[in-house]
Amino acid sequence: MDYREAGVDIDAADAAKARIRTLARGTFNPAVLSDIGSFGGMFRPDFARYREPVLVASTDSVGTKVKVATAAGRHGDVGYDIVAHCVNDILVQGAVPLFFLDYLALGRMDVERVAEIVSGLARACSELGCPLIGGETAQMPDVYAPDDYDLAGFIVGVVDRPRALTGDRVRAGDHLLGLPSSGLHTNGYTLARRVLLEHMELDLHAPMPELGTSLASALLAPHRSYLSALEPLLERDKIAALAHITGGGFVGNVPRVLPPGLGAVVHLSAWNPPPLFRLIQRGGDVSEEEMYRTFNMGIGMVVVVSPSDLHEVEHSLERRGETPVLIGSVVQGEGVRLE
Amino acid sequence: MDYREAGVDIDAADAAKARIRTLARGTFNPAVLSDIGSFGGMFRPDFARYREPVLVASTDSVGTKVKVATAAGRHGDVGYDIVAHCVNDILVQGAVPLFFLDYLALGRMDVERVAEIVSGLARACSELGCPLIGGETAQMPDVYAPDDYDLAGFIVGVVDRPRALTGDRVRAGDHLLGLPSSGLHTNGYTLARRVLLEHMELDLHAPMPELGTSLASALLAPHRSYLSALEPLLERDKIAALAHITGGGFVGNVPRVLPPGLGAVVHLSAWNPPPLFRLIQRGGDVSEEEMYRTFNMGIGMVVVVSPSDLHEVEHSLERRGETPVLIGSVVQGEGVRLE
Repeated sequence: MDYREAGVDIDAADAAKARIRTLARGTFNPAVLSDIGSFGGMFRPDFARYREPVLVASTDSVGTKVKVATAAGRHGDVGYDIVAHCVNDILVQGAVPLFFLDYLALGRMDVERVAEIVSGLARACSELGCPLIGGETAQMPDVYAPDDYDLAGFIVGVVDRPRALTGDRVRAGDHLLGLPSSGLHTNGYTLARRVLLEHMELDLHAPMPELGTSLASALLAPHRSYLSALEPLLERDKIAALAHITGGGFVGNVPRVLPPGLGAVVHLSAWNPPPLFRLIQRGGDVSEEEMYRTFNMGIGMVVVVSPSDLHEVEHSLERRGETPVLIGSVVQGEGVRLE
Repeated sequence: MDYREAGVDIDAADAAKARIRTLARGTFNPAVLSDIGSFGGMFRPDFARYREPVLVASTDSVGTKVKVATAAGRHGDVGYDIVAHCVNDILVQGAVPLFFLDYLALGRMDVERVAEIVSGLARACSELGCPLIGGETAQMPDVYAPDDYDLAGFIVGVVDRPRALTGDRVRAGDHLLGLPSSGLHTNGYTLARRVLLEHMELDLHAPMPELGTSLASALLAPHRSYLSALEPLLERDKIAALAHITGGGFVGNVPRVLPPGLGAVVHLSAWNPPPLFRLIQRGGDVSEEEMYRTFNMGIGMVVVVSPSDLHEVEHSLERRGETPVLIGSVVQGEGVRLE
């Protein structure tokens, strides 16, 4: 018996590594000292303009969005997603990206698929200034079905400690600005798939007039990163707090960035959740409450702004192509009230 | 329909998070500024004693060792494994750990199992001075069977650039010292399981006199970290290079840390591979070549030492409880020759 008969193809793994190496090199900047294939990626940070540099690290996965990618046979978007998701997660603490690593585990080493995933990943890394300095591509038959995989990302960024968003700048009366999401981003896919693909038995590839595209394209729309829109405002200390609306929705995520004793009111009439969310809600007879604690409902990032900065922040966001929506405010108390 | 009916239990996830938070806090040191539950973990590094600090980052998983853990109903060891594995990976470049994050994905949110895995992980983090500052615990029904999971780790360490091991100190004639592994560590489990559990149909729990323990205990023996043995030698610049013997064995890993134009000879008569490796080889009729490119064969770390430092390095390692074995040397050429 050998490793290949057991289900692990070292030759295919080597071929995949060669493809990944080329893609990753395209994301490098002068701070990257090592090449892909080293045991560890080496990164020489330049902290000259920081008074007290603090590293901010996060990890996440794209969840069962990978099942939609597999069903649709389109894998580049989930690569993009995981980078954008991680960038947003550290942005919430005021940090900008330094570097990224990925973890990709597959039932079978399909070299073309790996290259497609990592292409999307590398595209996001280049776009967001976040070199891909390492990763692991694991073949795990028995854990993953031959056609299944999982994709997680790890990011490290930096923030100057006096500028870190820790909640201490938030006051009752601050405004909540919502920034539009591009779709489900990377949360709620287990429920969405159950409703749309299993219960409603919708065809992923048929055009859906109410979505303006196919279901596959709507479900695979890449997770937006809010880095370019928010970085200039962070540099000018115009933001009191940020909440990335991921699993748990407003109720699960907004309280994570508020100080004790403060809560939030979100006015549901302030915006219309995009048709994809309403389709899931109707199709699965999902309660309004459950929708708002599972999905982002059209708002991917909440920006907490003091009343004196509101006008300037809105203008700055609009100049960068965002369409901020005033969705609520910070109030005395705890938790999030949806009204 | 709701998220729970779809297979994602938010209440269980919250219970697991609470357990993880307590365990992670036990690993914190004063450099950790955030609590678990923030979007990103915050770590304030102290680089005062570094001339040119370089961050070294790595990610890996425990592979299908998780299947053995599940079959044996023992999950603490794989938690320990992933930390030790990642610590060794950055040690190879001369780096010591700063912090760790984990990615744990499960078919079903079994709170007790998550706590058991994270307990092992936290134990290793404490032991190795590497706080657990974040992580993701994902419920992914449809990707993972209810009883299956995957576990990956992400580490960031630091090395002073002049001290980084980049291969440039290695010379032809340098010695290779092998440091014993504790078993398979975290590689080759797909082949090992095929042979031992499927082909030979061995009972995981029965005592195996030739192994001196049960098969479960032999297969789940935690991955050793070589940090405490090697850190003092790194500080005194006594090491030319290090190779962590993971997937690919000697042939796959030793060349990764040698400069172009140099190769290695490994003398197979220098040590006896422990009985577990011979059991797999016999049971699966696995070729000698395949064994050495799949498994560590009893040597978990290779230390490359100049002849003038050999005596001092051996003594230092022995004082720290290691039993270094002279297994070969660096030679002109490329690749690794097993003799």
